[in-house]
Amino acid sequence: MFVLINLKAYPCDPIDIASIAAEVAANTGVRIAVAPQAADLAAVAETGVETWAQHVSSIEHGSHTGSTLAEAASRAGAEGTLLNHSEHRLRLADIDGSLRAAERAGLETIVCANNPKQIAAASRLDPDSVAVEPPELIGTGTPVSKADPDIVTDSVDAASGTPVLCGAGISTGEDLVAASDLGAEGVLLASGVAKADDPRTALESLVDPIA
Amino acid sequence: MFVLINLKAYPCDPIDIASIAAEVAANTGVRIAVAPQAADLAAVAETGVETWAQHVSSIEHGSHTGSTLAEAASRAGAEGTLLNHSEHRLRLADIDGSLRAAERAGLETIVCANNPKQIAAASRLDPDSVAVEPPELIGTGTPVSKADPDIVTDSVDAASGTPVLCGAGISTGEDLVAASDLGAEGVLLASGVAKADDPRTALESLVDPIA
Amino acid sequence: MFVLINLKAYPCDPIDIASIAAEVAANTGVRIAVAPQAADLAAVAETGVETWAQHVSSIEHGSHTGSTLAEAASRAGAEGTLLNHSEHRLRLADIDGSLRAAERAGLETIVCANNPKQIAAASRLDPDSVAVEPPELIGTGTPVSKADPDIVTDSVDAASGTPVLCGAGISTGEDLVAASDLGAEGVLLASGVAKADDPRTALESLVDPIA
Amino acid sequence: MFVLINLKAYPCDPIDIASIAAEVAANTGVRIAVAPQAADLAAVAETGVETWAQHVSSIEHGSHTGSTLAEAASRAGAEGTLLNHSEHRLRLADIDGSLRAAERAGLETIVCANNPKQIAAASRLDPDSVAVEPPELIGTGTPVSKADPDIVTDSVDAASGTPVLCGAGISTGEDLVAASDLGAEGVLLASGVAKADDPRTALESLVDPIA
Repeated sequence: MFVLINLKAYPCDPIDIASIAAEVAANTGVRIAVAPQAADLAAVAETGVETWAQHVSSIEHGSHTGSTLAEAASRAGAEGTLLNHSEHRLRLADIDGSLRAAERAGLETIVCANNPKQIAAASRLDPDSVAVEPPELIGTGTPVSKADPDIVTDSVDAASGTPVLCGAGISTGEDLVAASDLGAEGVLLASGVAKADDPRTALESLVDPIA
Repeated sequence: MFVLINLKAYPCDPIDIASIAAEVAANTGVRIAVAPQAADLAAVAETGVETWAQHVSSIEHGSHTGSTLAEAASRAGAEGTLLNHSEHRLRLADIDGSLRAAERAGLETIVCANNPKQIAAASRLDPDSVAVEPPELIGTGTPVSKADPDIVTDSVDAASGTPVLCGAGISTGEDLVAASDLGAEGVLLASGVAKADDPRTALESLVDPIA
Repeated sequence: MFVLINLKAYPCDPIDIASIAAEVAANTGVRIAVAPQAADLAAVAETGVETWAQHVSSIEHGSHTGSTLAEAASRAGAEGTLLNHSEHRLRLADIDGSLRAAERAGLETIVCANNPKQIAAASRLDPDSVAVEPPELIGTGTPVSKADPDIVTDSVDAASGTPVLCGAGISTGEDLVAASDLGAEGVLLASGVAKADDPRTALESLVDPIA
Repeated sequence: MFVLINLKAYPCDPIDIASIAAEVAANTGVRIAVAPQAADLAAVAETGVETWAQHVSSIEHGSHTGSTLAEAASRAGAEGTLLNHSEHRLRLADIDGSLRAAERAGLETIVCANNPKQIAAASRLDPDSVAVEPPELIGTGTPVSKADPDIVTDSVDAASGTPVLCGAGISTGEDLVAASDLGAEGVLLASGVAKADDPRTALESLVDPIA
């Protein structure tokens, strides 16, 4: 199972979370990555944790202001990037373009989508993985694996071979195991770790069943 | 005169340009800043050059993925931010929101606009400065001060007190002086330095008349 | 006072509301207009009511698919258009472009904005009127004139001469009078009439104090 | 073969083109439809021609200003809608949402896309048809069937059963036959008819080989 912690624009200390994630990954053997703000990529990567961008733009080198160039994210230490997160939905043509940009820059990719039909569509654009995140569950603390397990299994079917991650509402080790049992090969986490009073304990107990 | 070098998504080495800009600024006493990719902010700031973001989002801390949080740009070393560049036009409400975000994070602001009417509008949102960049001149090598000097003087009038910078087509010391003579208090540069064969010579000869 | 009824995408019969509005306008002498879906403009205009578009795009004749051409709205019978409604916020450059498009097509214009600062900005783009609609009050039934009267008076000041309409939460004749007393020259209505059980009575009682 | 004439925002008389299209369809038995501005849907439908919207929004009835409600397009006479045209690209989630909206309103759907990979993705969202339009050929007069026939055959493969239309550069009967030979079940036309000096002759000669 791959555990990706999306730090969003949370008021947490990204270096702190990154250092904890690096240690927990080393101690447990679980693959854990952290996705900070673009401006924090370099500092987060320096902790040694696997570092991901939250987004890269559908651009090549050139006259583009205020975009996130895949090559710059990679140079700062990113090894992968989320795309089309429900908080940053992209046009179909731009998912395609951002995937090509990520490929060019050597970034691994996860394309998010809301439902199995969109997962089917997204997987045809050849990302490394897809992630299903029903928007109505984001930030609720109710895991998709419990609220609507069919969404996960239907997404695994729809992805026809592309690995599926499971987002929205994952916060405990039990959720992680449930997601795995439904066929997910990873989870997207956010507030469950980034806003926890004790992020280390939160993350350790989360990965404990798969450590 | 304030000289802001926008590195856009150019295939240049941002550290290289930043180091040169820092030295030229120190040697000449001219205020020079560099605006790199968000992912490059920290590395550019480490060179000692005045560092600007190309954009910050209209968000506060919270659940926002793939946005540029003003606080993160500031933490990485940015001292200011461009907003509403013609390559990243914002909704009116988001220019307002991004200005409030920048203010919160202690970032100086320049709001770009296409023409004197939009400059008048932008200046009413209380940015630190505005910049007029006729889209049809961007990247042409023809400075706005030569192609249409009235746009600059009309923008200075329209801004009613807010300092006006002048973008689009500036590449020589002569252009800089012409912009200053028309009432501009700074210039936005991009390809003229960032894509020059010899960025140091390009920048030195550009600021020479005001050094 | 100008009363503009925005039918949004409500499940009402636009012809029915338009006919009622035309009669109430004729009977009371109050200026009342109706803004339906673009596809309903022609049928609404045929009722004889003053007809407005909800939006026109910042385009000229040419290769643009799925946009709302100002000239087509005008040909279908629109006499004016809302722009930058809080449910359809536009980029600063596009408010400017849409105003120029509306002007070309002979459409009267109202630019909406959230707060006095944005009203100041919008009014510098030379619309015929501006409308202040604090997003937090839309659809609440609490009129801005009661919840935060300063927003209206500050908007009137900020607009420096451009007529100000008042949106969000207006539903009674008392609200209308309060808005007028604060300096507003019109109101934007929506659900108060369009979703009323008896739209005629709702509209009649609303305009009664100014009839 | 289905021939859909997209009138875009051209300065043509939509009623004129629609009347011609209705007559040519009746005389030749070829299925021909016209997609005008939303504001022109009702007038175009009255000519008796099969009428399509250029776009419908991903919304249901409710508080949405300046959007194109599928139900309103249908009520005005539309029988189908284009979606995700290269001049109006949509977010993946909104293509899904607009398809559901069109379905609800009884509109037939064609989702446009740039290349076979995006065609594969779009077809997984269950539109009635997809249309491949390489952006670089739009408006060139060079038909995709000639410039890059593999794009058409690859799109037919990628669509795995969803009918494929062919856009961009189609202007002659020969192009139509070539598209058909490559597996396309229809074509999107625009300037070739809408901007022709003699639209009737242009359309008649276009459909002649399949009449």
